[in-house]
This record gives sequence, structure tokens and C-alpha cells, in this order.
Amino acid sequence: MVPRYSRPAMTALWEPEARFRIWFEIEAHATEKLGELGVVPPSAAKALWDWWATSPVIDVPAIDAIEAVTKHDVIAFLTWVAEQVGDEARFMHQGMTSSDVLDTCLAVQLARASDILIEDLDKLLEVIKRRAFEHKLTPTIGRSHGIHAEPVTFGLKMAEAYAEFSRCKARLIAARAEIATCAISGAVGTFANIDPAVEEHVAEKLGLAIEPVSTQVIPRDRHAMFFSTLGVIASSIERLAVEVRHLQRTEVLEAEEYFSPGQKGSSAMPHKRNPVLTENLTGLARVVRAAVVPALENVALWHERDISHSSVERFFGPDATITLDFALARLTGVIDKLLIYPDRMMKNLDKMGGLVHSQRVLLALTQAGVSREDSYRYVQRNAMKVWESDGQLSLLELLKADTDVTAALPVQEIEDKFNLDYHFKQVDTIFKRVFGEA
Amino acid sequence: MVPRYSRPAMTALWEPEARFRIWFEIEAHATEKLGELGVVPPSAAKALWDWWATSPVIDVPAIDAIEAVTKHDVIAFLTWVAEQVGDEARFMHQGMTSSDVLDTCLAVQLARASDILIEDLDKLLEVIKRRAFEHKLTPTIGRSHGIHAEPVTFGLKMAEAYAEFSRCKARLIAARAEIATCAISGAVGTFANIDPAVEEHVAEKLGLAIEPVSTQVIPRDRHAMFFSTLGVIASSIERLAVEVRHLQRTEVLEAEEYFSPGQKGSSAMPHKRNPVLTENLTGLARVVRAAVVPALENVALWHERDISHSSVERFFGPDATITLDFALARLTGVIDKLLIYPDRMMKNLDKMGGLVHSQRVLLALTQAGVSREDSYRYVQRNAMKVWESDGQLSLLELLKADTDVTAALPVQEIEDKFNLDYHFKQVDTIFKRVFGEA
Amino acid sequence: MVPRYSRPAMTALWEPEARFRIWFEIEAHATEKLGELGVVPPSAAKALWDWWATSPVIDVPAIDAIEAVTKHDVIAFLTWVAEQVGDEARFMHQGMTSSDVLDTCLAVQLARASDILIEDLDKLLEVIKRRAFEHKLTPTIGRSHGIHAEPVTFGLKMAEAYAEFSRCKARLIAARAEIATCAISGAVGTFANIDPAVEEHVAEKLGLAIEPVSTQVIPRDRHAMFFSTLGVIASSIERLAVEVRHLQRTEVLEAEEYFSPGQKGSSAMPHKRNPVLTENLTGLARVVRAAVVPALENVALWHERDISHSSVERFFGPDATITLDFALARLTGVIDKLLIYPDRMMKNLDKMGGLVHSQRVLLALTQAGVSREDSYRYVQRNAMKVWESDGQLSLLELLKADTDVTAALPVQEIEDKFNLDYHFKQVDTIFKRVFGEA
Amino acid sequence: MVPRYSRPAMTALWEPEARFRIWFEIEAHATEKLGELGVVPPSAAKALWDWWATSPVIDVPAIDAIEAVTKHDVIAFLTWVAEQVGDEARFMHQGMTSSDVLDTCLAVQLARASDILIEDLDKLLEVIKRRAFEHKLTPTIGRSHGIHAEPVTFGLKMAEAYAEFSRCKARLIAARAEIATCAISGAVGTFANIDPAVEEHVAEKLGLAIEPVSTQVIPRDRHAMFFSTLGVIASSIERLAVEVRHLQRTEVLEAEEYFSPGQKGSSAMPHKRNPVLTENLTGLARVVRAAVVPALENVALWHERDISHSSVERFFGPDATITLDFALARLTGVIDKLLIYPDRMMKNLDKMGGLVHSQRVLLALTQAGVSREDSYRYVQRNAMKVWESDGQLSLLELLKADTDVTAALPVQEIEDKFNLDYHFKQVDTIFKRVFGEA
Repeated sequence: MVPRYSRPAMTALWEPEARFRIWFEIEAHATEKLGELGVVPPSAAKALWDWWATSPVIDVPAIDAIEAVTKHDVIAFLTWVAEQVGDEARFMHQGMTSSDVLDTCLAVQLARASDILIEDLDKLLEVIKRRAFEHKLTPTIGRSHGIHAEPVTFGLKMAEAYAEFSRCKARLIAARAEIATCAISGAVGTFANIDPAVEEHVAEKLGLAIEPVSTQVIPRDRHAMFFSTLGVIASSIERLAVEVRHLQRTEVLEAEEYFSPGQKGSSAMPHKRNPVLTENLTGLARVVRAAVVPALENVALWHERDISHSSVERFFGPDATITLDFALARLTGVIDKLLIYPDRMMKNLDKMGGLVHSQRVLLALTQAGVSREDSYRYVQRNAMKVWESDGQLSLLELLKADTDVTAALPVQEIEDKFNLDYHFKQVDTIFKRVFGEA
Repeated sequence: MVPRYSRPAMTALWEPEARFRIWFEIEAHATEKLGELGVVPPSAAKALWDWWATSPVIDVPAIDAIEAVTKHDVIAFLTWVAEQVGDEARFMHQGMTSSDVLDTCLAVQLARASDILIEDLDKLLEVIKRRAFEHKLTPTIGRSHGIHAEPVTFGLKMAEAYAEFSRCKARLIAARAEIATCAISGAVGTFANIDPAVEEHVAEKLGLAIEPVSTQVIPRDRHAMFFSTLGVIASSIERLAVEVRHLQRTEVLEAEEYFSPGQKGSSAMPHKRNPVLTENLTGLARVVRAAVVPALENVALWHERDISHSSVERFFGPDATITLDFALARLTGVIDKLLIYPDRMMKNLDKMGGLVHSQRVLLALTQAGVSREDSYRYVQRNAMKVWESDGQLSLLELLKADTDVTAALPVQEIEDKFNLDYHFKQVDTIFKRVFGEA
Repeated sequence: MVPRYSRPAMTALWEPEARFRIWFEIEAHATEKLGELGVVPPSAAKALWDWWATSPVIDVPAIDAIEAVTKHDVIAFLTWVAEQVGDEARFMHQGMTSSDVLDTCLAVQLARASDILIEDLDKLLEVIKRRAFEHKLTPTIGRSHGIHAEPVTFGLKMAEAYAEFSRCKARLIAARAEIATCAISGAVGTFANIDPAVEEHVAEKLGLAIEPVSTQVIPRDRHAMFFSTLGVIASSIERLAVEVRHLQRTEVLEAEEYFSPGQKGSSAMPHKRNPVLTENLTGLARVVRAAVVPALENVALWHERDISHSSVERFFGPDATITLDFALARLTGVIDKLLIYPDRMMKNLDKMGGLVHSQRVLLALTQAGVSREDSYRYVQRNAMKVWESDGQLSLLELLKADTDVTAALPVQEIEDKFNLDYHFKQVDTIFKRVFGEA
Repeated sequence: MVPRYSRPAMTALWEPEARFRIWFEIEAHATEKLGELGVVPPSAAKALWDWWATSPVIDVPAIDAIEAVTKHDVIAFLTWVAEQVGDEARFMHQGMTSSDVLDTCLAVQLARASDILIEDLDKLLEVIKRRAFEHKLTPTIGRSHGIHAEPVTFGLKMAEAYAEFSRCKARLIAARAEIATCAISGAVGTFANIDPAVEEHVAEKLGLAIEPVSTQVIPRDRHAMFFSTLGVIASSIERLAVEVRHLQRTEVLEAEEYFSPGQKGSSAMPHKRNPVLTENLTGLARVVRAAVVPALENVALWHERDISHSSVERFFGPDATITLDFALARLTGVIDKLLIYPDRMMKNLDKMGGLVHSQRVLLALTQAGVSREDSYRYVQRNAMKVWESDGQLSLLELLKADTDVTAALPVQEIEDKFNLDYHFKQVDTIFKRVFGEA
């Protein structure tokens, strides 16, 4: 975790204290059910909850000190709780194994992290939608291969982003369900020393599903799917970030990240206004994606479990979720405050001398009975002249002077093909598909 | 694609001929709708389908030869079709762009590949289920950290695999839905020159969903999710493969890959029977996973599209699906014919002098009123002696001679803790969770 | 391997025939030494080489047919050779294990692949150097964050690429040395059944180093380093490819990939000239890099070896080297024929109203005694006006009208700061560092 | 960075204070040279160094507070230094750009991190060497595919590790040279406003090479090579860790991680002694490797630089080096204190009824004139019986009773083939190759 790329709510989730609180809840709920089942005295759970009701401070250094001796984190925690609660605490953890606590805790943390990320996505979607409707019909040039193609609207660009992040949200909801399971099944998952009813009880209390079959641990294909999904979301962030970076480059300048008054772009060059937020998002996407391969490598644990996954998750559980949370919020801010320059968009669109309308003329020629090959040739020879003139020549004028073209199409019809609105007649259709409204 | 790791049905899907056949269907369906809409003469689609009804051979070299000149694959294909069909063919592709064909074709290919993979998973699940029930109560030692822990059954190991591959199947069905979309929206996705009804028509005919908003291409977050999902499935294959490899190692030898009579394990050592199929699966998992990062890197295309994704997909579209198909089939064969040795499992289980029962004694001591710390100490000091004797000493005998232990527990009760069936009482519960039956 | 991204010489190296030829050489050289050592009759090697001198055709299908029965590739090959050579062939492979042949063969293949790649790099470097000197002093704007910064020359961009690919060459030479080792040490690397002198002999004959200690195989950290190095080279290719893509985008258009007369950029838009080669290189870089993670995962083979690495290498041995060879050649062609537009470069450079000179003024102000903070503020307030005017205002004129500025600097001195040559005075220094000449 | 996987010296290197100290040194050395060149007053550097000689505390929060306003880290630092040093400080940073400081600082940090890692490797090598000589002739079974093959010695396993980590050290030294370069070349690398002599001076003072040609930044192919090298080293760690994990598994138990008296292996199972350190190392290897792909993705910065690499390096600069330092130290401890059980090794070696000697018999038969195919068949049919008897039958006895075998070989000669020392006769040769002594 790098502090400058983190936000408090998500970070708190991964603090030792948060972890210990979840551990306690798991143990106390389990003890409660064990009491109902008659395995331990009902007074045990009561003692635990009574202590909990006093809102005790979790003494992280004290627990760490015990762990330094036992070299076992859960035993250290249980020992510390027993010191606080007293004799009744010895019934805790009956028939359970450390992983029952650790893995169920991780499930709670990742589920809560998912909830934050889903909320982040909702905010991002809201902002994108607003900018989409604001610029639904703002013309801008569409580019394939970085080369001017045909007109689109800036609203359509936002609609694409909206659709993409809507998919990301659906994926994240599915990924959350993947990892939100509870396993309390004992040393090798057989429930030999603990009734499955305990697992069901704890699962219900913590809002988790039960893990149908665990070994000592929850199977790691679930986590692999979870982190892979974060990697896909990160890549979608990268895509929108790269779009902004392109739009801000000096020669294009159709949009700019908001530039706050006190900000200095460069220690040396005072005129610079750099898309540093979206460049940063490009890098953060790489960071989030870095969790994917280790998570995939974590799946093939040996037999009923080994502990190789643990260190990986200690790094990437926090790093991937904290960084993604930060990145989504940063992207939301960028889009929210993005400076959008419709005039510049129109200026760029016009600069190619009308080349963007070439396809319409091509189609009109073929519809007028010219062969596809000839049509292509007529248009291309004029288009190339415009291209080489750096936008000084006008395609419309050249076509009107090309007798092969005018032999097939009246001048008025050629002129009709240079109308921008023609390109936007289906924008409402697309908006309805994406937003359910237009 | 490496021939030895491929199977014919999946490989055929990626041959040029299969691609061209799908291209034709897309173009012909589109022309049909364009005819209905009055954009082109209805006779155009009829001419295409009439030719198609003659079951024409796709002349791949001829198309390649045209491409060598035009340097454009779709134009080359259209030119060739026009040569076959005649004048009516010039109405094909009206208002469409190459990517409309290419991306929709890839969607069809990946959807069909998914269907094969889903069928593969079904076969694997069937085989795993059979072995699970066959060995539902075959005792074997559960191992955490590679160290004997407590007894499980071989059927439980299979149940875990069944649950894991069931999740993989659900993920693959979701991944199929991700990529099974049709985009026929023109040069920059605005439908400027083509009615959205064409897209709807082609989508319906090919069993795809419509892409709500495309640029020139179908957005690549869909493919990133698809290949990531294949990576997770590959990791689950690796997990089961590694389990078999462990079980086959000389000192364990609880299971073996089937060894065919003519097979030679080693050119030098005639006694060797090596788990080469599962070692190979371990490697193939790495190969399938190799597609994940490039697919994630493909998402951030520039503006309305660049073509950097294309070469990546030419490699990993075939490689990842063909290899995964092969791997799933190979794993199915391994599990189907796996030689399972219950006697050896029992022998291994017994070899630690009863150490696997230590936790039960620990619990009994605490329930008999001994503090958790003392209980742990009593059991551990005897357990350590057994451990160091390499299984020559018996934990039961040592405990019966330990006066701290016998002071708390009658000998009969100690002996009761060494009963294997105790561990298997919830196997039916787990089987019902996993298979819906026990 | 995807045929369209391959070249014949590199591809041939990975054909079965090439592999069998290397196998034969290894076996024959080994038999020769075994004969010298008196382990086998000297006539054995003679028989092998005599047959070899007849330039025999390697009957790949026949060997494959034998392998279909034995399920062991080296035994199949030895059997086939024995069929050709006769009785003396039974002395082949004495004391060797399959991996002695397979791994030494892979070393030869990777070393030869490296030689081709080194030659590719030499050609690329030559072309880059030519373009560098050609445009040593062609002014163009330097851009940080995609925003105009200060002037550079196009030759400097080429010098950077030259330095980078020179490093790549040095890395590749080191990577070649990593994998060019010979292991003929028997079943577990102890030389129990074969004299180390055989390994030394074969190594010398094949131009390899001896592997100081092998297990059954050559350790895979060597190959991990090799494929990682290819991944770095691929990334450098991507960097130069992305530079060209940026320079070709419509609004910049300072350079273009060569566009051949017959080429069609788009089936729909006849005016398009797309940087498809460099976009393709961007994708191919992802493909080559895909080999890195599997190669790293291959290192931790179990004990003296498992065979999981083998399938990975069957894919990525050919794919990574063939694709990189193709990519280097394609990049060489792109740079060789790159259309470079100095006029457009100058036009772009000028378009920001002189903002690129802002830093020089800033420095002059501080040197004239203005505090750094004030200097920054004076320059920035004028720079911002220019920026917002979209290049319509001139920084020079504004500064000359700013009394805070003119209070510190005479007008003549301000004007002096707007001289382009000032920026290029160290170009020769840099060229000497990079090329050894200027 | 995860505290439990970190060590103080390496961690300190990445603290803000260490970074600011390096920044100061860069700025002060540069100012010194600028003074010599007459660009700034010589008193400026003196003022800086005089203040430095007072061993000033670096007030990190104060610098952070300034950055919160300026949003620019280097300007914040310079402002703070100016507050401390006074007026003379305004000459600092003359003609430099932030990246001159940042990138040169990163070079110093990575070079110092490399020095620590090289020292780590030296310690590891020393320990491995000691254990290698200690067990140079301790027999243990060699295993391919996890299956008993032929005898090796434990010392040979250590020799392999020694050779592998020696290669890692050589790679790390090369990687250090890759990144230990100094760039002080101004806003776009042209030295327009700063003399190259400054770069040379600072480079020399800091023990770096000069960067022959930089843009605004040091090219990131260098860092990609550096982190890739760390990934390879991590994979070698994984390999040795996996070896220990295998040796410790219950059925093998030929070696064990040292188990300290107070340690508890499992909260539930008191008998457990788990290889948790090497399992942890397996996970940490994945963590270090996670830096490789992002570092490769960082290479293709846009034009003269973008800032996407920065966040990646903020994570993985510290994480990869700190984790690798920790992992190397942990591995050193594991090998140093590894409990090695020669008796158990011999017991395992013997347990296959002499199967490990099968190849020698095979060779003897062929040398006695039996065809290779018949030899293989004779040995294999007896070997299979032994194999299926689970080591109860003896290969020697069976061969002595096989008349096909005794027809070719006298009984005494068969018995000779079952001698263990035969396998170790080249151990000294190998040791000399690896250690230069035996």
C-alpha cells in the first residue's frame, strides 16, 4: 500500500484492528452456536459478547507480542482474548482450525472491499452518465488507428465508457459472490470435530454463503477469479485514462484534466498543463493487474492446503483493493471536472478538408450504379490530394470537379453527403440501449 | 498451436475455412436484412444464399492471393465471393466496415469454442463424480503443508474437484455471454450508413446478443474477461494435476496415472512409471494462463480502435482455447483411468503411529476440564516422541502410559478417540451439498 | 506460431527436421567420444557419420509413427536411426538419458535463434543510425506528458532508440550465453554411466559451454533469464512503435509509415493511411512478453526434474523467437522507409506561440536577480494566456509587454531566448556518446 | 511493503528521509559543478554543504505540507531546503528538471538495494557451500517426475543450488549496472540549459555511470531488465524452497526446517511440524515476480516521457527489493539450520528393492551383447514385479533368478551392479566445476 494512492475507508478495512474485530465476531458467533448445540456451555458465548458490548480497545501490540513467542497469529489472538474475558474463553475455537478463522475473515474483508468498489463504480457511472447527456450531440471526430475516421459525438464516447463500467459492475458483483463464503469445517474440512450447523450459523450472521466443500481452506480458484476481475476493471480504467491523455495532447487539446490554481505542471516549464492524473491511472492499472498472475499461481495449493497463498494475499488483498478504490475515485474526479472544448473538437473535425465524409460519397456512387472498385478509386484519388495538402484542399470542391464523380452524382447530391447530422441520427438509439433513455 | 496438444474439433474452428464460412454468413444475413429494408435489391441476398446452397468449396489460397495484393483480408474475401457469385455480390457489405465482420466472426468462434469447452467440463465433471462416489468412504490421510493431518476420504478429494470445476463451468458460461455479441455499426459505431436493424437481424441469426455500443470494434474488456476466465480454469486443472503428481510420487504412491502396456517411462530406467500426463497438464496450465496478461493489455485501444489487439488474438484465440480443450480432455482421461490404491492409502495413514488422532485427544482433555494450554502440552510431548520414532512408537500406547492424561481421561475413552469412522460422519452432508445426493 | 508473423530462417530452426538433425549430431559426437574412451567400438561412430555423409532425408512421419507406439520421442528417433544405420547403431546413447539429448538440442536451437536475433538487431541499429544522422538537426518539439515541452531533433529520437537497442543487443548476447550450455550427465546428473569427457567433447563440437552441474536437465533459471530478456527487447520495440503511432496521428502527422500504392487502408474510408505496422508491433510485443511468466514458472521443477516445462517450451521456444525475429525485421522496415516530414515538425513546434521557450526566460529572470518564485509567476501568467489563446497570442510579444519582465530583462535579451539553435548545441556531444561519432 | 516480510536496512532505503537525503546530494553536487562552471556563484554550493555538515534533521512532514499546496514533490523539497539554507539556495536546480533528481535518485536507491541483495546472495552462497561439503557424499535418491530414479548425494543438490545462485549473483551485478546511471540533462534531455559536465560530476560523485542519452527520464528498458532479473532470482528461491517442502513431507522426511521449542505448528494438531518458511518463500517468489510485467509495461512511455511509470515504481521499487532481501535472508536461515536426516535418506533409497540400480543392469546386458530391446524387456519385467510388490521383492534376487539375464551375465557381475559408490565417482569432478575445489 502506498499512502498517496489510498483512501481511508478501504485502508481501514485492512488494518490489524479490523481483522481482529472480524476474528472475534467469527469466534463469538461460532461459540454461540456451539453453546446451542450443547458442545460448550452457553455461558461461554455470553461472556464473549458481554465483553464485546463494552466496546473494548483491541490492543494490537499486545497481540503481536504474544505472536512473537507462539509464532502463530490465531493462537496469539485467542490467548489475548482469554486474558481479557477470563475462564469462559477457553471454550472458544472448539473444533475449529486457524484457517476457519483466517479464511472466513478474508471473505468478509473482500466482500466489504467489494461493497466499497461497487459504490465507487456507481459514482463513476453517475458522473459518466451526466457528461454523456451533457455532450450527447457534441460533434467530435472518431479516430481509428489514431487517424481521423468519421464523426461521432463526445456523448457517444461517454456512453461507451458507461456501458463498459456497467459491465465491470456486473462482473464485480459476480466476483463478490465468488469470495463471500464461510468455511468452518475443521483441520481438513471433514467437520470431524465441529457440526456443520456452526458454519451455517456464522455464515448467516456474517452475510456469507457456506462453502460447500472446503479442505482446510477455502479453495483459491475463488480468489483467482476475484483478482482477475479487478484486473479487468483496472484495464477499463486504463482505457478511459488513455482516451483523456490523447484528447489532452497539445495538437489535439479537445479536453483537459481540471487544473487547480496553485498547481505547477513542471518545475522548469511554467506553461505546462499535463494529464498527470490519467497518466497516473495508467500506472495504477498496471499495479492492480499485477495481482492477477500471483492469484492464479495461488490456486494449486498442495493437498488439503499449503500456506504459500498467504503472503501473496497479505500484499495484494490490500494493495489491489486499495489501489482500485483510489483509482476509481480519481477517475470519477477526472471525468466529473473534465474540461471539454467543443469548439476545438469542431476545429479538428473540419481540419481534414471534409475527408471524414468520403465514405458517404463512396456509398452514393455505388448506389448510383458505379462498381465498388471504381467508386473506391474515384473517391480515393481525390481524398489523397486533400490528405497531402494538409487540409488546405477541400474534398467537396475536388469531387465537384471530378467528372467521373459528377457523371454519376448530381452536385447537389454530393453536397448533401457533407452534412454532419447524418452521422448522429442513431445516437438516441444507442443512448436508449445503454442508459434505457435518450 | 502445437499439434500434439490439440484436438480436431476445436482446431477446425480456427482454420481459415471456418473463418471464411462465418464471414459469409454474416455478410449474407446482413445483405438479406438490407434487402428487406430496401437499401439493396432483395435479389442480392438470394444470389448469395443460392450460391451457398451449392456447398461451394472455400478456396483459401485464392483468397490469400488476392490479399497479397490488397493487403486487406476482408476486401480480399469480398472480391473472391464476388468472383463466384457475380454482379449481385456488389451489394454485400453495404455500409459495413471490416471490423463488423471480423469482430462478429470472432464472437462466433469464441462462442463455439466455449460450447466445446463447456462440453469438456461436463465430461470431466461426470468422470470426477463417478470416482467420487466409487471412493466416497475410501480413507486416506489429509495433508496440510504436505504433513499428515487428519483422515479424509478419497471421495472428498474428488468432491472438492467437482465443486471447483462446477464453478469453472458457471464462470465459462458467464464468459461465453461476455463475448457472444454482434456489432454491425459501421466505421465508428454510429450506424451512420447502416440501420441498427441489420445488427439485430444478424445477431439473432447467429445466436448472439447485440453490442449495445461499439466503436469500430467490440470493446476488448469482454475478451479480457473471457481469457482471464480461461486462466482460472487452467489453474484449477493445475491444482488437480498437482494432486495426482503428489499421490504418485514413490514414497506416497496412493494413485497412479494409467500406464499402457507399450509405454516406456524412461529410455534409461525401465522401472519408471512417471506422472507425465499431469506434469504436462501443469505446463499446459501455464500456456493457457499466458493469454491473460496480453488480453488485459489489449483493452486500452486508442480512441475508436487501433489494431494492436489483432495479432494477440490471432495467437491466443486459437492457442488458449485449443490448449484448454486438450487439457480438459487429458485430465478427464487421467481421472477416468486413474489407478487408485486404497491399501496404500491405509498403510500411509497408519504409518504415523496414530498421530492423526491427536486433536481428538486434545479436545477430550479440554472437555474433561484440563486447560487448553496443559492439554496441548500433554498431547504434544507424546506426539513428538512418536514423530521422532518415525512411526515406530504408538501414540495410543504412550498416552495410556502418561499419568497426566490418564488422570483426566479413562483409558477406554482414550481408545475411543482412535476410531477412523468418527472423521467420516459428515461425508454424506458434504456430498449432498456438492452433488445434491449422497 | 502464426505464419503471417514469421520468417523462414527462424521458422526452419523449429521444424521437426531441424530438431532431429541436431539430435543426430549430439548422439554421433557422443558416440565418437565413447569410442575414443573404449566404452563402445570406434566403428559405431564411424557407421553413424558414414550414413550422415550420404545426406539422408529425415523421415519425420516414420519417426512419428514409432513414437505413436513407444510414446517416447527419443527412443522413437533412436529406433529409426538404427533402422537406417544397422547394427552398429545399438551403441548410440550409451549411458545417456533422453534429456541429455533434448536439453542440449534446445540449447543449440536457442543459441542459433539468438544468432538470428542478434543479426536482426544489427540491421535495425544500422537503419536507425542512418536515419539519426540524416535528421541529426531536424527540429521537432519534445513532448512530456504528450504536451509540448522544449525543442529536440528527430535525430535525437533516433539516437535514443539506437542506445536502447544497443543495450538490447548486449542483453541478448548475455542471454545467449545463459542458455548455450551442454549437459550429458545421465539420468540424475551424476555421470554414473557416462564419462564427463563426453559432455566436454559434444559441447566443444557444438559450440556450447559445459553445464557445470545438471540434474537430469539443464536448470531452467537459464531459460527464464533468456525469455525475460526477449520480453525486454519486445518492450523496446513497443516503445519505438508507439512513438511512430503518435507521430502519425492526424493532428500530429510528423511521420508516416510508408504506404504502398496498392494498399487499402479501410474498406469503407478511402482516405485512410493507418500506422498498422506499428500497431501490429505493439501487439506482437505483448505476444513475445507472454513467454516471460511461464518461463519464470518453469524454474521450480520438482527434485531432479519434472516435465512440466516441456510443453511451455514447445509453445514459446518457437513462438517467442519467431515472433521477435519477425517484429525486429518489421520494425527495421518501418524505420528504413519511414516518411519523415520536417516541415510539419516545424509547423507543430511553432504552433504554441513560442511557449516552448518559456523556461529559458524563466532562467534568465532568476539569473537577473528575480526570485525563483516571482520569475515563475511572471512567466506562467503570460504562458497561460498564450495557452488559452490556442497559439494565437505570442509569448514573446506578451513578455515584451509585461513590465515586471522588462524591468529585469532588456527586450533584446528576451528576444535572444527565442532562438532554436540554443537547444541543439549539445546534439554532437550526445551523438558522440551514442554512436562514437557526430 | 508488508512489515513482517521486511528487514530494516532495505526498508530504510525507501523511507522518505533517505530519498530526500539523496535528492540533496544530487542538488548540492550539481550546484557545486555549476559554481565551477561559473553559472552560479561558488558560494551557493558552499552554503548547501555547510548546512549539510550540521547534520540537519529532514523534516518530512514539513516537506509534505508544502507539497500539499504545490502538488509537486521536487519544488516542495527545494522550497523547504531554501527555508533552511537561506538566499544562496535559490541557485539550486538551475537548468535541471525534476526528473533529473527523481531518476538519478531512483538509480542510487536501486544500486544500493542491489548492494544489499548481492551481500544477501553472498551469505546464502556461503551457507549453501557449507552444507554442500558437509553432505558431499551423503547418499540420497535422485527423483525425476517425483519417482525414484538413481542415487545422488545431498551435497550435489546443494551444489546445484550453489551454481544457480552464483548465476543469480552474476545476473544481479549486471542488473545493477543497468540501472546505475545518472541523468542530468534537462527538460527533454538536450542539455539546453545545463552543461553535460554537471551530469558527469554528479555521476562520478554518486558512483554512477552517465546516461548516454536521456529524454526527460532515464529510459525504462533499464528498469524492466532490473525487475526481470529480480523475478528470475525469486524463481530460483522458489525452486530451492519447493525442494525443502518436498523433502519434509511426511512420507519422505529427509530434511526439516528447524523447529524452535516454543513454536506451535497448528492450533489443532500438536504433532505438526510444517515447512512454513519455505511455503512462505514460495509465496514471496510470486510477490517479487509480480513486479516483472508492470516493469515491462512501463517501457513504452509516450514521446520524451509520461508519468505512468511512477506509481508502478513507488509500489514495486520498495516491494520487490524489500521482499527479495527478506526472502534471501529467510532462505539463508532455512538452509543454515536445515535438519538433515541421512538415515532416512538411506532408508528411502533402499525401499524400492534395488530398482534404482536397474539401469546399470540394462547397460551391462547390452554390453554383454544382448540387443537393446531385449535388455530393456528383461530388466523391465523384473522391475515391474518389484514395483508392484511395494518394495517387498528385491530386484537383485529376481534378476538372479531370471535365466535370460543369467545367460548373459554371471551372478557376481549382476551383484556388482548394485553398488552405491559407483554413482558417486564423479562427485569430486562436479564439486570442482562448481566450487573450484572438492
